Amino acid sequence: MRNVKLVVEYDGTDYFGFQYQPDVPTIQDELERALRKIVKEDVRIAGSGRTDAGVHAAGQVANFRTEGTIPTDRICIAMNSLLPGGIAVLGAEEVDESFHARYSAKSRLYRYDILNREARSALMGRYSLHVREALDLDAMADAGTCLLGVHDFSSFASADGGEGSPVRDLMKFEVRRSGEHLLLDFRANAFLRSMVRAIVGTLLEVGRGRRDAADIASILDARDRPAAGKTAPACGLCLMEVEH
Amino acid sequence: MRNVKLVVEYDGTDYFGFQYQPDVPTIQDELERALRKIVKEDVRIAGSGRTDAGVHAAGQVANFRTEGTIPTDRICIAMNSLLPGGIAVLGAEEVDESFHARYSAKSRLYRYDILNREARSALMGRYSLHVREALDLDAMADAGTCLLGVHDFSSFASADGGEGSPVRDLMKFEVRRSGEHLLLDFRANAFLRSMVRAIVGTLLEVGRGRRDAADIASILDARDRPAAGKTAPACGLCLMEVEH
Repeated sequence: MRNVKLVVEYDGTDYFGFQYQPDVPTIQDELERALRKIVKEDVRIAGSGRTDAGVHAAGQVANFRTEGTIPTDRICIAMNSLLPGGIAVLGAEEVDESFHARYSAKSRLYRYDILNREARSALMGRYSLHVREALDLDAMADAGTCLLGVHDFSSFASADGGEGSPVRDLMKFEVRRSGEHLLLDFRANAFLRSMVRAIVGTLLEVGRGRRDAADIASILDARDRPAAGKTAPACGLCLMEVEH
Repeated sequence: MRNVKLVVEYDGTDYFGFQYQPDVPTIQDELERALRKIVKEDVRIAGSGRTDAGVHAAGQVANFRTEGTIPTDRICIAMNSLLPGGIAVLGAEEVDESFHARYSAKSRLYRYDILNREARSALMGRYSLHVREALDLDAMADAGTCLLGVHDFSSFASADGGEGSPVRDLMKFEVRRSGEHLLLDFRANAFLRSMVRAIVGTLLEVGRGRRDAADIASILDARDRPAAGKTAPACGLCLMEVEH
């Protein structure tokens, strides 16, 4: 029985997230549909995490076990010929039997893309959030830095999370300007549901001067979702990389 | 009578180019439709050049003359509220009466984006050409450099051009790797129809080792379209900037 790791890129716009849900399009469902035709058996794929509806990925990791005979180095090209245009398998490799996309993951890197200019985008509307007002980057950097480390992130988690412990380790936070874009990078061991978008929504309020960077500590302490800012839209968010 | 200069960004995928043609969607037609509602008169827009069907723009320049009363600094936001999502006006400013988007243009900068990796793109398929094979960047750079300067570019122009003199001045050529992308920049005083795409198609043959960089001189000398390579697809091409 081979255990195969996939790296997957997708445009999440038209999907209800990675994870299978009945009656709605999901990335997992599309991947399993394509795989079944290739390995000729009923196969289940595990992703490193679900990603919310509308969120993109440039480096989602998944794995599946198969008795199928297709050589591992043909899986990528075979799947890409069957998958819809908004999903592509970037790599497939055989991994150790113990490998699990979710449980073996050490960290995830998410990037949030803000187009910060007067006019909305004609080219990148699917992949960025348009923010017209000037943003105080230093204040946003200060606020984000307060979130680094191991915290109870309940204030930045969807109410319907139900994911056990709300403690996560935010290992990296960076905000930088790239042309007209602001790119916000977040690496953590794992993320609560909507956590990055709740943080970005809060940082945007800081950037607009509606909230103080120093308030972050008390938001964390509150352990209460309404204490933080609005959830930023899914379109700006992309799962860049999963480290195993 | 005000003369107003616009900078326009568009996703060309669903349009038959910038320039108005009856019965098909064009950028010019969409811009004029939106403008008419704003200035309340029948207005004509001139672009710096037509851009082929499917070609994108991040910095197309256009201008129009109007007796309308809307303040120039409101034109941008008013047009963007009326235009389809794939077209955005980035800037509007009043310019000298003599300014003409096309005739006053000193140079145009086009960029061709090649995604050079094994898997097709799930995210950037609209804005890049996918090339799977390894490409010899040095050979492509050598070949492109042979095109610099003032030449008769007939070998790189659509047969149906009918644009008078086929002599153009290629002022800049650059090819560089950016992550998994190859970006090819071309600046010229003006371009013949499909010229950039014919050059890119030829450079791709050089990059794949099917044609020699040293052949470029004889291709130019031939002054005959079939002497050069295939026309590369429109999706990878973007008009970045027009200098006036």
